[in-house]
Amino acid sequence: MSLLSIGTVAFDALETPYGKTDKIIGGSCTYIALSAAFFVPKVNVVAVVGDDFPKEYIETLESKNINLDGLQIKQGEKSFFWAGKYHNNMNSRDTLVTELNVLADFQPSIPTSYQDCEYLMLGNLTPQVQIDAINGLNKRPKLIVMDTMNFWMNVAMDDLKKVLKMVDVLCINDEEARQLSEQYSLRTAAKLIMAMGPKTLIIKKGENGALLFQGNEMFYCPAIPLEDVFDPTGAGDTFVGGFIGYLAKVDDISFESMRKAVVYGSAMASFCVEKFGTERLLQITEGELESRVNEFRELARF
Amino acid sequence: MSLLSIGTVAFDALETPYGKTDKIIGGSCTYIALSAAFFVPKVNVVAVVGDDFPKEYIETLESKNINLDGLQIKQGEKSFFWAGKYHNNMNSRDTLVTELNVLADFQPSIPTSYQDCEYLMLGNLTPQVQIDAINGLNKRPKLIVMDTMNFWMNVAMDDLKKVLKMVDVLCINDEEARQLSEQYSLRTAAKLIMAMGPKTLIIKKGENGALLFQGNEMFYCPAIPLEDVFDPTGAGDTFVGGFIGYLAKVDDISFESMRKAVVYGSAMASFCVEKFGTERLLQITEGELESRVNEFRELARF
Repeated sequence: MSLLSIGTVAFDALETPYGKTDKIIGGSCTYIALSAAFFVPKVNVVAVVGDDFPKEYIETLESKNINLDGLQIKQGEKSFFWAGKYHNNMNSRDTLVTELNVLADFQPSIPTSYQDCEYLMLGNLTPQVQIDAINGLNKRPKLIVMDTMNFWMNVAMDDLKKVLKMVDVLCINDEEARQLSEQYSLRTAAKLIMAMGPKTLIIKKGENGALLFQGNEMFYCPAIPLEDVFDPTGAGDTFVGGFIGYLAKVDDISFESMRKAVVYGSAMASFCVEKFGTERLLQITEGELESRVNEFRELARF
Repeated sequence: MSLLSIGTVAFDALETPYGKTDKIIGGSCTYIALSAAFFVPKVNVVAVVGDDFPKEYIETLESKNINLDGLQIKQGEKSFFWAGKYHNNMNSRDTLVTELNVLADFQPSIPTSYQDCEYLMLGNLTPQVQIDAINGLNKRPKLIVMDTMNFWMNVAMDDLKKVLKMVDVLCINDEEARQLSEQYSLRTAAKLIMAMGPKTLIIKKGENGALLFQGNEMFYCPAIPLEDVFDPTGAGDTFVGGFIGYLAKVDDISFESMRKAVVYGSAMASFCVEKFGTERLLQITEGELESRVNEFRELARF
């Protein structure tokens, strides 16, 4: 089924206890698309970069079933750039540089060839841009999944609440769920957040796994305890990319399928953190993924 | 199978966002025994109280299949007393009062009738007392499970390391596992801790569930997200009491049984936090427990 992903394609510079990188390819949409493209024959992307974005990065994405007809390349402008440094426990990080550049006035434009989109993934972006993206489609997709972050809760809560009413699935982390709902209990938080619009809520808990809520149904997918987390950048985007990619592949949005989609998303994310940036995502084989999913099965079996 | 539990029987005074109590029955051994006694016909207890400990509390415990032949009652002395106040998120608390009283010079004495003990549970106590308890048995039990806390890592690490070499299963929380191993990754921490003695390690993660490690095997039992945690006191002891109680009941200490034992322990703990102190533990029915275990099954199914 046709899948459309809107978000950032950008440069990241990363520093973890294991080493540091110069500017490498990053951005929410990059991770989402690479992860989702593992499941479907084609992922359509809407994003914006400057003319400093290397042709080889574009070719890499295209070689991975990612369609970049919707990638705007702004001449004379620079790509979005983020630099960050992770602390020893990898659970917290400092942002060293944020240069919005082309992102500052990003207007999503949906190519005609994308208009049949059935699965829409809204990566972390200004809520208004997420609204514009939904409104840019002639037909409402079968499933709209959105990501967001606490930053938008601080500076654009009204717009954020508008998007929430337009989407089917919200995917945020535990801290964000607590901030959005003003509740400590994640179960109570989930009820309140689902009342804001999305029928389904995913709460990512990092090394503590992920929770899926829909009505009175709940699913808790544990995370495989890892010896080393090499670089957590993009793990959340990889997770949600795998989630929507799996659903688009089976073309079934029942709660049963969503349970499996959370496991596949978690498995993809568990690969992502094994190397810097997108490196590991580019190498995953189908056999490796199935074997990782079986590890999840074994981990939770009793 | 015969089960022996050594730990504290004491007074607690609790304050949570939901209310506060006067002195009520508490102590590691109280929770462990009440939880384990749900699974086996008799739990033998070794502990110490002062002559201020109410007869009605003793009768309550005895009515719940708990054998108190090993409960020392020190005339003219006072029982151990702890008072604490939980913060709004229930994940942190302040200790308001700690009066060791009879606990200051507790010498565990094992009644002859307990000597056939096959399952030994060492509740959180001075490591030297835990060693004395093991040495007080003529025959090594089939399974020794121990609990401890960061306090002993700070003040009695050498003794703690001695006990670790004598036990089969260590049960601690994630913070304690990180402190004991000096490693952030729980998987790496588990390897190092198992190399210190216990073949099996349980890492409790509160609302994030519990991990079970043995050799290269792992099990992750999620926790059911709860709307309200009324009072977390004793949840960890209730967990480990359910764990060893289940194993004693099926009299099988394979990793397969331990997986189930972790689920039963988690289910017991999920009841414990629903009311103040031991109140909810005294009311659980078999039907409720089975239905809670099925909730765990449903929660983790995919």
